[in-house]
Amino acid sequence: MKGYVQVYTGDGKGKTTAAIGLAIRAAGAGFKVFFAQFLKSGEYSEHKALERFSDLIEVRQYGRGCFIKGTPEKEDIEAAKRGLLEIREVVNSGKYRLVILDEANIAVYYGLIEVDDLLDIIRNRPDHVEIVITGRKADPRIIEEADLVTEMKEIKHYYKKGVLAREGIER
Amino acid sequence: MKGYVQVYTGDGKGKTTAAIGLAIRAAGAGFKVFFAQFLKSGEYSEHKALERFSDLIEVRQYGRGCFIKGTPEKEDIEAAKRGLLEIREVVNSGKYRLVILDEANIAVYYGLIEVDDLLDIIRNRPDHVEIVITGRKADPRIIEEADLVTEMKEIKHYYKKGVLAREGIER
Repeated sequence: MKGYVQVYTGDGKGKTTAAIGLAIRAAGAGFKVFFAQFLKSGEYSEHKALERFSDLIEVRQYGRGCFIKGTPEKEDIEAAKRGLLEIREVVNSGKYRLVILDEANIAVYYGLIEVDDLLDIIRNRPDHVEIVITGRKADPRIIEEADLVTEMKEIKHYYKKGVLAREGIER
Repeated sequence: MKGYVQVYTGDGKGKTTAAIGLAIRAAGAGFKVFFAQFLKSGEYSEHKALERFSDLIEVRQYGRGCFIKGTPEKEDIEAAKRGLLEIREVVNSGKYRLVILDEANIAVYYGLIEVDDLLDIIRNRPDHVEIVITGRKADPRIIEEADLVTEMKEIKHYYKKGVLAREGIER
């Protein structure tokens, strides 16, 4: 079965959440999944849940967890670049039917990784490997390369009412 | 912790997938989840995966699995109405922190259930119960009532290239 490239972008809630759903669905079919997270660090509720799938879903984080505004620091860039090296190996190995690159769009946007490097990984992947890329501000070249793109458009959001990220719902 | 109403609508891929992600994240925090599916019937990959959470996530289907075009049949309406009765009880019981009503928007759109009945359940829910409603063509009154609305906008979709629903990826 051929693998495609899916992109989930836009400002609305649901991008990482959909990626978790995709990981779960793939695991339900017995596929191995590599779930890479850029920028993020720390254990959220989804990580606790995904532990039940440690035989099928591997989660790896390449970030420091702090919000990046303006200029990323050296450590942020190093973590992301290290991530990309590991992801290249993982994709090339063909062992994982589904490789999720959570927040990779944002990592490109902030200059932590090069869009050309990401495109190179995508284009040279084994034919059966499906790639999912999430994050706001997807690069036009990533959108061009993708087979499926969904924009999560924010119509209404309760953070504007002052609701903070809640355990088990947002994190 | 207060529960809100989240709606995922639009034509793009990712609505049910995000709902699965929300269920998993909530389960990771130890919350009980009721995952109701209108219209759908049959075991997909996600159901096989969710079996690993049978202590926390309960999945129930109120449909016949066939695509409804034009006029729904009596059996479709009966299944959906039976579902709504059960959901009302489940919500009122307050036992589930998260209640997902997958494809409820479409059930309203095709006249299988009344939007007033759905609104009544939402408005009279215990304060801590979070409701998630998915499906294309969300009714304006549901959007009005919701605290968070994301439109999954289709930018590009591989079904236009002739790719059919694939096990472990779409189903």
